[in-house]
Amino acid sequence: MRPEIALAKNLFDQLQIGTADPPGVTRASFGEGEAFAHALVAETAKSMELEISHDVAGNQYMTWPGTDRSAPPVITGSHLDSVNHGGNYDGAAGVIMGLAAIHALQQQGFRPQRDITVMAIRAEEMMWFPTHYCGSRMAFGLLDPGDYDAVRRSDTGRSLAEHMKQAGFDPDALKAGAQPLDPTSIHAFIEAHIEQGPILQERGFPVGIVSGIRGNLRYKHCRIDGRYDHAGAVPREYRHDAVFAGTEFVQVLERHWNDCQAAGDDFVATVGEFHTDPSIHAITKVPGQVRFTMDIRSLDNRLLLQTDALLRHEAVRISAQRGVSIDLGAFTHAQPAPMHSELRRILEDIAQSESIPALTMASGAGHDCATFTWQGVPTAMIFVRNQNGSHNPDEAMEIVDFAAGTRLLEGLLKQASKTCQPLDLLCGIH
Amino acid sequence: MRPEIALAKNLFDQLQIGTADPPGVTRASFGEGEAFAHALVAETAKSMELEISHDVAGNQYMTWPGTDRSAPPVITGSHLDSVNHGGNYDGAAGVIMGLAAIHALQQQGFRPQRDITVMAIRAEEMMWFPTHYCGSRMAFGLLDPGDYDAVRRSDTGRSLAEHMKQAGFDPDALKAGAQPLDPTSIHAFIEAHIEQGPILQERGFPVGIVSGIRGNLRYKHCRIDGRYDHAGAVPREYRHDAVFAGTEFVQVLERHWNDCQAAGDDFVATVGEFHTDPSIHAITKVPGQVRFTMDIRSLDNRLLLQTDALLRHEAVRISAQRGVSIDLGAFTHAQPAPMHSELRRILEDIAQSESIPALTMASGAGHDCATFTWQGVPTAMIFVRNQNGSHNPDEAMEIVDFAAGTRLLEGLLKQASKTCQPLDLLCGIH
Repeated sequence: MRPEIALAKNLFDQLQIGTADPPGVTRASFGEGEAFAHALVAETAKSMELEISHDVAGNQYMTWPGTDRSAPPVITGSHLDSVNHGGNYDGAAGVIMGLAAIHALQQQGFRPQRDITVMAIRAEEMMWFPTHYCGSRMAFGLLDPGDYDAVRRSDTGRSLAEHMKQAGFDPDALKAGAQPLDPTSIHAFIEAHIEQGPILQERGFPVGIVSGIRGNLRYKHCRIDGRYDHAGAVPREYRHDAVFAGTEFVQVLERHWNDCQAAGDDFVATVGEFHTDPSIHAITKVPGQVRFTMDIRSLDNRLLLQTDALLRHEAVRISAQRGVSIDLGAFTHAQPAPMHSELRRILEDIAQSESIPALTMASGAGHDCATFTWQGVPTAMIFVRNQNGSHNPDEAMEIVDFAAGTRLLEGLLKQASKTCQPLDLLCGIH
Repeated sequence: MRPEIALAKNLFDQLQIGTADPPGVTRASFGEGEAFAHALVAETAKSMELEISHDVAGNQYMTWPGTDRSAPPVITGSHLDSVNHGGNYDGAAGVIMGLAAIHALQQQGFRPQRDITVMAIRAEEMMWFPTHYCGSRMAFGLLDPGDYDAVRRSDTGRSLAEHMKQAGFDPDALKAGAQPLDPTSIHAFIEAHIEQGPILQERGFPVGIVSGIRGNLRYKHCRIDGRYDHAGAVPREYRHDAVFAGTEFVQVLERHWNDCQAAGDDFVATVGEFHTDPSIHAITKVPGQVRFTMDIRSLDNRLLLQTDALLRHEAVRISAQRGVSIDLGAFTHAQPAPMHSELRRILEDIAQSESIPALTMASGAGHDCATFTWQGVPTAMIFVRNQNGSHNPDEAMEIVDFAAGTRLLEGLLKQASKTCQPLDLLCGIH
């Protein structure tokens, strides 16, 4: 085993032991497990002679100084928290891969021109503090000042501000407008992460190169109101049947998915909840109400907006035809986060020259990387094949696949850390 | 107001007062309210010099003796129980109309050749003892012997047998095989009932002539099993989405309904319950399970059987295409109960000659009448327009519409009670 992979494996093992909470591990945001992980990686970083610092939000920066310290750094990293009884690799693999890649470059005697920083991000898992990308958004001063007191941890009920202060950080500075990271002073951000899904596993690729993080439309409160009636006595023309209306609506959404797929558009749709009212519904009653949800994702924001327009049009049409009322309710819209095309191309070149089978793919799940993209930072993302999904104790990853990902990251850091490189693709972006 | 309608109105008023349970009335099967109703109509019947008797099941017979007492009688009637906090007319109107029609015939000096019997049936409302047409089926000895002890009243938890004995009847005789009514010794059965639905009200007819009671297929335990997956990370080809499968299946059923309607077939379908699992489902999870119900009704038994075959075929097709498993589960099948065509024709003739607007229509709901039809007794059914549905305290009926129904019943009893009549349509049926 190469030394940097041995170092990584040792870190995974210690992390597993130090944050064990059978079944699985627990590293709550601003909790003990997360703190243990931060201390563990800092210790290794020190032994590698990296500079350690923290921002007021609690994010940790482990920096290998470059020869030109005035040049914007290349940052790599991910988050160190996990869900309750989760797996050992979700998030942590990205931080550990940063250290492993630097270790490999150090072994080779490489000297970066730009600083290379491994960033250990706080509080990514929404199950603790129910707000997206909490740690990375705080790093850019993007969290709403009111959220520090309003957003509470699901297990303790205590506010984000309280937990941050207890951990020694400074929510007041952030509320007052602090922006620890300036997007124009970051050369590139590269996140490695386990895939979480079955695609690499099913298709037989050890690693993936992410084309972008899908944006989404989430409708949590869709509702169809018809009228309850006797299933025997009321003829069709007097019915206002919410289930027939709702099933037609869902089938319209599925046909739209078919059309998108036929056109080669990136699109995915899920109606995760769909239900009549258990307190009223009955086999012999015309259903008077349905509630349902929709989660619609795409790399193409224009397609998301077109889809929303189509669904609203169809809701009106079906409502009028059937004498029901279809209300899509409040929804959230997250923009897609396309990865930087030149960084992607470099990753693809490295994969080819190193003979690492790499699949170019969209990320269906969200990642901190999206925060950086939305801030205008050139970003790239490497996926590592994993087994049994994530957010569960059975989450697994082969160290050999992690090693393949590390080779990609090592190669990209090497090129991206040059202040000027042969292809001159990254120089002068800012 | 004609005397027979004044008599009826007085009975409705006394019944309302005597079984009041605000809001509405309560006449539980084999309970106090039902007993009050039986005593009330018996009192009136006695004053009309009808013979009163009961069978071992508790059904009451109020008989106007005919001149030929050996000829099979014409029976008219309905049930006297109501749902909890129900309306005053559901069931009772049919018994009271029988008495009113006889009263009218008596006033005219008419003398029937056959006995004319008003039957007050027990225990029709399934909310008390959850078995179909309990009282009329007991009258023919059709209830399973085990049911007397197994079927329990929903409010008391006590068995049917216990309640029957407490009311002074003899479940043991029925368990031992007693058959109070012999279907071959009944000339005809005529039930009057409020419509319960909105059809007469919406179309402006005071009365309806029932073409038949729809049969039904009831699937109470349909179930689709797919697989729960991450809504972002899992691509379409690896999904086993129970909601997309289920909505397609329900839309197949609705298209079949369209086809039936286009072909002029009597058909109605309801998916009253359709739900993902609230303990597992989530907006960001591919739904792994759906449960739903189907209630399918038609006057045409062959169409019911064809529909079942079609649905099973489609369940297999969709399951295979989508990698899910659609299981329609256990179902019940009640045969349609067509009304006797000659009795219908007589009713239509009476309506025409009396200038009573009468709509020929199927009954979507079930009635005791179906028990008589299945036993081979020629049956007819008269619907009276009502407002606000039934099984609720707001149930309403205009006495003038009841009077129109009474005219139809009076005319039919007059003809059907002849041992031989000019058209000779009913003579010699047995």
